[in-house]
Amino acid sequence: MALIRRGAVELIDETELKNKLRSGRRLRVKLGLDPTAPDLHLGHTVVINKLRHFQELGHQVQFLIGDFTGMIGDPTGRNQTRPPLTREQILANADTYKDQVFKILDREKTEVLFNSTWSNPLGAEGIIRLAAKYTVSQLLERDDFSRRFNQEKPIALHELLYPLMQGYDSVAMKSDVELGGTDQKFNLLVGRELQKSYGQEPQCILTMPLLEGLDGREKMSKSLGNYVGIAEPPQEIFGKLMSISDELMWRYIELLSFASTATIRGWKDDHPREVKARFAREIVARFHGAAAGERARAEFDSRFRHGALPSDMAETTLAAPAEGLQLTQVLKLSGLAASASEAARAIEQGGVRIDGERVSDRALRLLPGRVVTLQVGKRRVVKVRVT
Amino acid sequence: MALIRRGAVELIDETELKNKLRSGRRLRVKLGLDPTAPDLHLGHTVVINKLRHFQELGHQVQFLIGDFTGMIGDPTGRNQTRPPLTREQILANADTYKDQVFKILDREKTEVLFNSTWSNPLGAEGIIRLAAKYTVSQLLERDDFSRRFNQEKPIALHELLYPLMQGYDSVAMKSDVELGGTDQKFNLLVGRELQKSYGQEPQCILTMPLLEGLDGREKMSKSLGNYVGIAEPPQEIFGKLMSISDELMWRYIELLSFASTATIRGWKDDHPREVKARFAREIVARFHGAAAGERARAEFDSRFRHGALPSDMAETTLAAPAEGLQLTQVLKLSGLAASASEAARAIEQGGVRIDGERVSDRALRLLPGRVVTLQVGKRRVVKVRVT
Repeated sequence: MALIRRGAVELIDETELKNKLRSGRRLRVKLGLDPTAPDLHLGHTVVINKLRHFQELGHQVQFLIGDFTGMIGDPTGRNQTRPPLTREQILANADTYKDQVFKILDREKTEVLFNSTWSNPLGAEGIIRLAAKYTVSQLLERDDFSRRFNQEKPIALHELLYPLMQGYDSVAMKSDVELGGTDQKFNLLVGRELQKSYGQEPQCILTMPLLEGLDGREKMSKSLGNYVGIAEPPQEIFGKLMSISDELMWRYIELLSFASTATIRGWKDDHPREVKARFAREIVARFHGAAAGERARAEFDSRFRHGALPSDMAETTLAAPAEGLQLTQVLKLSGLAASASEAARAIEQGGVRIDGERVSDRALRLLPGRVVTLQVGKRRVVKVRVT
Repeated sequence: MALIRRGAVELIDETELKNKLRSGRRLRVKLGLDPTAPDLHLGHTVVINKLRHFQELGHQVQFLIGDFTGMIGDPTGRNQTRPPLTREQILANADTYKDQVFKILDREKTEVLFNSTWSNPLGAEGIIRLAAKYTVSQLLERDDFSRRFNQEKPIALHELLYPLMQGYDSVAMKSDVELGGTDQKFNLLVGRELQKSYGQEPQCILTMPLLEGLDGREKMSKSLGNYVGIAEPPQEIFGKLMSISDELMWRYIELLSFASTATIRGWKDDHPREVKARFAREIVARFHGAAAGERARAEFDSRFRHGALPSDMAETTLAAPAEGLQLTQVLKLSGLAASASEAARAIEQGGVRIDGERVSDRALRLLPGRVVTLQVGKRRVVKVRVT
């Protein structure tokens, strides 16, 4: 139970889950996946890691690909992130998902399901019977619905059907536990309620936090640029993880490291820089293999420890707006360049490094929360903290 | 257009309908029917008479039996008036409907359709696509929904789907005009909007008033007991129609008589009692044949004109609560009996007549709006006006 609870935000409810575990059955643990964006980042893996915990305890993971609604998309066309997908696209996305998640999960203890299997046979009549199980007010209680309703922003009727369809998935899959981010809590509860109304033992629900991005403020997301993609090159993952604050590091370790809680407790006395490197190596190893982890760490070390960097660097703290500071500005403000145009020239000539990596993109922005070692040429080095 | 307009409450919109009529096409005129209660009363025939006007102008009636939703009923079980029906019950009800309405309509110019034909093939996906065409707020604008929503009374989600299903019927039927009571206006408009969104020329909608019952106040309904069933015996229909107020008579004539507007204008100079008898004969003849109409009138005349009734009766006006006055009270208050118990005895002994008809039910109530000739024994007669 301690392993299941680790990092989790809410479990509904503990007694029920204990009874299920005590039954000795292999539990069916569901995770619903959006069939659109197959490019996973570390934020996505928080829940997948939790599935792994269940697998370690001997249970069965149910990976649900939401192909039924995926093929419909958003018929109003208002929601750009929900274009209708073809069967082929969904299958291709599912394959990409699988390639990525089986770096974390045990393929043997994972079932992959498609909800069109039971959603299509519901037919027009089945949807109406399903819709009869919830009232409009109950559905409008969902955070984003109530907000939009109160702000008089349109909510198309089919949007109210989607949580019911998702909930019905749990009925069809006879799930024992469903996992999701805290933003999914409402939908997970619908599954629980529907199972009851279909005479099933209701699933327990376990919500996981939304992982903060590298800035330590916003949730990790590709569009905010504060993410670590699991398909990124080893050195990139390593470098990004080395740049986070110490506080965020402990948070990441709780949610992302597979080290036991006892082991992690032992790390508290080590130097944060060493702990960070250990953790970064673990993550690189997870997605690129142990050798890649070792290599990334060695390269990073040689660049920073054995490199020409002075051991006592100047430090500067720069206040940045939410969208970050442009690198040319950062160079100028930290005294590494006399002007923004000099900074731009230095970037063009390949003379600028961030955490030892040469930078060529002069439009690059540093977001609040980043701590980087900034270098121009061989000598001029400053540690910059963007806040 | 004058014939189409006669008695109607609202036409949306007149220019469009004129264009459709001018096209010379045979228009498809839709009426949706609830497949549950096949026992029609005069209130139901207001809309059916309007369909007849369209038939007289050469158009085609589309009788739609809502068997799709009829077979589902109300899955929540909260709505007692919507039990799920079997295919057989629905077909039997449809036959009863047809038996009754073909006393008014031309069978040759009437098509009978069942909406399961196109609703079932929509499938789960079709329902979701349909649901995407309306927002929750648009649907909650419907009078009864907004009332319940504001009073925090539950509205099950499938109830919001039903207007869309009804509207989709118009799309599938390519209806040119849809008729309904004023209480159906919202649903008729949904059909119009959906046709537009499916690239069809939108149907015109024509709403008819809800006919007042014999009391002249509440709408005619079986449960209020203020109705004239079209399957009732001739004498019963005739007697009930003779009991209505003069004002209500002119209202009924406008909505129920097939006499032309010019003819009716000519009746204004006749004695109301004569006009009422003429109208009552027409209605009896419609549902029981011309001979029955003649006979009902003759019997009624012989009972009242050639009977022992004095030509100058005393008149009393009695104020009654909404639920009406008990007959024993009426007899006492109008001086026909010394006490309520004497009145009860007189009823038991068969000595009391209303409009010439012997009454045996002492619990009978006279509702506000009724004007009756009340008789105890041979001599004591009073015209009573209940208000």
